[in-house]
Amino acid sequence: MSSRVRVEVPEGSGFGPTHLPYCVFRPLGEEPRVGARLGDSVIDLAVALDDPMFHQPTLNAFMTQGPQCWREVRERVRVAAESELPAAAVHAVRAVRLDLPVAIGDYVDFYASLDHATAMGRMLRPNAEPLLPNWRHLPVGYHGRAGTVVVSGTDIVRPHGQRKTDSGTPDFGPSRRVDIEAELGFLVGAGSELGRPIETGEFAEHVFGVALVNDWSARDIQAWEGQPLGPFLGKSFATTLSAWVTPLDALTEARIPLPPQHPEPLPYLRDEAAWGLDIDLSVEWNGHVVSTPPYRRMYWSPAQMLAHMTVNGASTRTGDLFASGTISGADRAERGSLMEMSWGGAEPIEVNGVQRTFLNDSDEVTITATAPAVGGGRLQLGEVRGRIVKAV
Amino acid sequence: MSSRVRVEVPEGSGFGPTHLPYCVFRPLGEEPRVGARLGDSVIDLAVALDDPMFHQPTLNAFMTQGPQCWREVRERVRVAAESELPAAAVHAVRAVRLDLPVAIGDYVDFYASLDHATAMGRMLRPNAEPLLPNWRHLPVGYHGRAGTVVVSGTDIVRPHGQRKTDSGTPDFGPSRRVDIEAELGFLVGAGSELGRPIETGEFAEHVFGVALVNDWSARDIQAWEGQPLGPFLGKSFATTLSAWVTPLDALTEARIPLPPQHPEPLPYLRDEAAWGLDIDLSVEWNGHVVSTPPYRRMYWSPAQMLAHMTVNGASTRTGDLFASGTISGADRAERGSLMEMSWGGAEPIEVNGVQRTFLNDSDEVTITATAPAVGGGRLQLGEVRGRIVKAV
Repeated sequence: MSSRVRVEVPEGSGFGPTHLPYCVFRPLGEEPRVGARLGDSVIDLAVALDDPMFHQPTLNAFMTQGPQCWREVRERVRVAAESELPAAAVHAVRAVRLDLPVAIGDYVDFYASLDHATAMGRMLRPNAEPLLPNWRHLPVGYHGRAGTVVVSGTDIVRPHGQRKTDSGTPDFGPSRRVDIEAELGFLVGAGSELGRPIETGEFAEHVFGVALVNDWSARDIQAWEGQPLGPFLGKSFATTLSAWVTPLDALTEARIPLPPQHPEPLPYLRDEAAWGLDIDLSVEWNGHVVSTPPYRRMYWSPAQMLAHMTVNGASTRTGDLFASGTISGADRAERGSLMEMSWGGAEPIEVNGVQRTFLNDSDEVTITATAPAVGGGRLQLGEVRGRIVKAV
Repeated sequence: MSSRVRVEVPEGSGFGPTHLPYCVFRPLGEEPRVGARLGDSVIDLAVALDDPMFHQPTLNAFMTQGPQCWREVRERVRVAAESELPAAAVHAVRAVRLDLPVAIGDYVDFYASLDHATAMGRMLRPNAEPLLPNWRHLPVGYHGRAGTVVVSGTDIVRPHGQRKTDSGTPDFGPSRRVDIEAELGFLVGAGSELGRPIETGEFAEHVFGVALVNDWSARDIQAWEGQPLGPFLGKSFATTLSAWVTPLDALTEARIPLPPQHPEPLPYLRDEAAWGLDIDLSVEWNGHVVSTPPYRRMYWSPAQMLAHMTVNGASTRTGDLFASGTISGADRAERGSLMEMSWGGAEPIEVNGVQRTFLNDSDEVTITATAPAVGGGRLQLGEVRGRIVKAV
C-alpha cells in the first residue's frame, strides 16, 4: 500500500484551508497538471481528485465549467486537504516548476484608481484638471498584449524602442525608464456571448478568481508613442501574472463597499453587490519594501469593469484577463508605480541606502498582498516577481 | 470507382489557379475542414491532399508550420487544382458555410495611412498640426479585441455605450455613429520568441497571408472614451475578417515600392524588401460603391509594422492578426471610413439617391479588393461583408 501523508499548515500561513489557490505545476520531469496550494505544499489535483479536468497544461478546462463546478471542486479540494493523501499527490512548492496558470484570451488593463489617475494627470498635464472628463463616468481601459503575459519569476528583458527626447525627435535604444505597475487581475472563467452584456450582479457567475499582476512599463517609450491611440510597445514587452489564482470564493471576507462615486454611475455601472476588496499590497524592490498600495481605495469595482467591458455587446472567453490598473493610495508610500513614487524621476526613492528612480538591470521587484481570510486571519495572494535583465 | 471532376474557372475570375486562397468551411452537416478556392469552387484539402493538418477547425495548425511548408502545400494545391479530383473533394462556394478561418491570437490595429491620419487629425484637432509628432517616426498602433473578430457575413449588432454629447456629460444608448474602417489584415503564421525582434527582411518568414478587414467603429462612443488610453468599446464590439486568406506568395506581382518616407525611418524600420502593395479596394454601401481606397498609398508597410510591433522584444504567435488601419486616399471618393467620407457627419454621402452619414439598421457594407495576379490578370481578395442589426 502506498504511503499517505497529511499536509501540515505552518502557523500564520497565508495559504490555509480556506484559501486553496490553484496553479499549474510540473513535478520534475513530468507533464504539467493542476494543483492547489495548502501551506507550503501543492496538492496534485490530477492525482488527489482523479479527474481528467486537472490533467491539463492550463486551468482553462476547469475555469470554463462555471460557478457550480468551481464550488464543487473547491469543496472536494477542502475535503482532500483535510485528509491523508497519497504521498504522490503532495509536493513541496519549492520543488516544482510553476507554469503560467491560464491560457490568456484577451487582456484588458483598466485605470481604476482615482489616486493613480490623479497623480498621472498632474504629472502629464500639470496645467490642466488632472482627471479627464470621462474618468468619473466610466472605468477607462484598453487592450494589452495577451501573448506576452508571463508567469511570475520570468526574467524581463529591458525593451528597446523609440524614446521620447526633449528635441522632438526620438532616439532609439534600451528604455531608460522601466517601471512597474502593481495591479490586481481578474480571470474570466465562464465566458459570455457576443451581443450579451454582463450585468454587475453577474460578476461572480463569470469571474473564476484573482491574481496579482505586474504590468511592466517603459515610460520613455510610452511617452513618445502613446498618442492618439494609447499604450502599445511601452507595455507589450511583458506583463507578469502570479502563478497562483485565488478563487473568488476565498475572498468573501475581503468584500467591502466601494468608496463613494460622484457623479452616480449610469444604471449599467451600479454595483449593488459591492465588489470593493480590502486587499493590502506590498511592493519590494530588491527585498526592500518601497510601497504598500491599498486596493480598498480603488474607485471602480471589478464588477463595474466587467459590465463596462461588455456593455457594447463584446463577448468574453475563458481565460480573459482584466486588470485593475495601477493600485495607488493617496500617500507617496502607497503608490503602485515608480513613476508616481519618484514623481516622474524628479524625487528619487531610497532603496537599501541608494537613491533610485527607475529599474536598473538585475533589479528584482516582488509584489505581494494579503486579505482577510474566510474563518479569520489573513490569506496571501500568490506573489508576482520579476528581474530586469540587460537589453539584447 | 467514385466520380472525378475538374474544376472550371470562369473567364476573368479573381480566384484563378495562381491565387488559391484558403478558408475553413463546412459542407452541410459535416465537421469543419480547410479548403482552397478555385473559381467558384472550394477544394476540400482534407480529402484532396489527405493530410490531417487540414482536418481542422482553423488554419492555425497549417499556418504554424512555416514558409517551406506553405510553399509545398501551395504547390500541391496547384497540382490538385489542375487535376481531376474526387467529386467529394469539390463543393460550390455558395453551398458551404464559411467559418472564421483563424483562431486569432493578438489583434493589433495600425494607423498607417497618411491620408487617413491627416484627415482624422484635421477633424479632431482643427487648430493644430493634423499629424502628431510621432506619426512619421513609427507606425502608430494599438491592441484591439481578438475575441470579437468575426467572419464575413456575421451580423453586427449596433453597440450600446456612453456617447459623447455637447454638454460634457455623456448619455447612454445605441451608438448613433456606427462606421466602417476598410483595412487589410496580415496573419502571422510562424510566431517569434519573446525577446527576439522580427526584422523587416524576415516578414515573409512569419506572415502567412492577408485578408480584408472591416474594423467597425462607434464614433460617438470612441470620442468620449478614447483619452488618454485609446480606443476601447468604440471598436471592441466587432471586427470582421474575410473568410478567405490569400497566401503572401499570391501577391508577388502586387509588390511595389513604398511611397517616399520623410524623415528616413530608423534602421530597424527600413524596408529594403519593399512591401508596398498595389491593391485596389472598393467599399459598397447597400450595393452602391461609395469609395475606392488605394492601398498603394499606405505610408508604412506591413513589414515595418511587424518589425515595430516586435522591436521591444514582444513575441508573436500563430494566428496573430495585425491590420493596416483605415485605408484612405487623398480624394473624398478614396476614403476608407464614413467619418472621413462625410467629414464627421457634416457632408452627407449620396447612397442610392439618399443623403447618408453613418450606418442605419439593416445597412450592409461589403468591402472587396483586387490586385495584380501572378501570371497576369487580377486576383480578388475575399470580401468582408456585414449588416447592422438593431441594438438589443
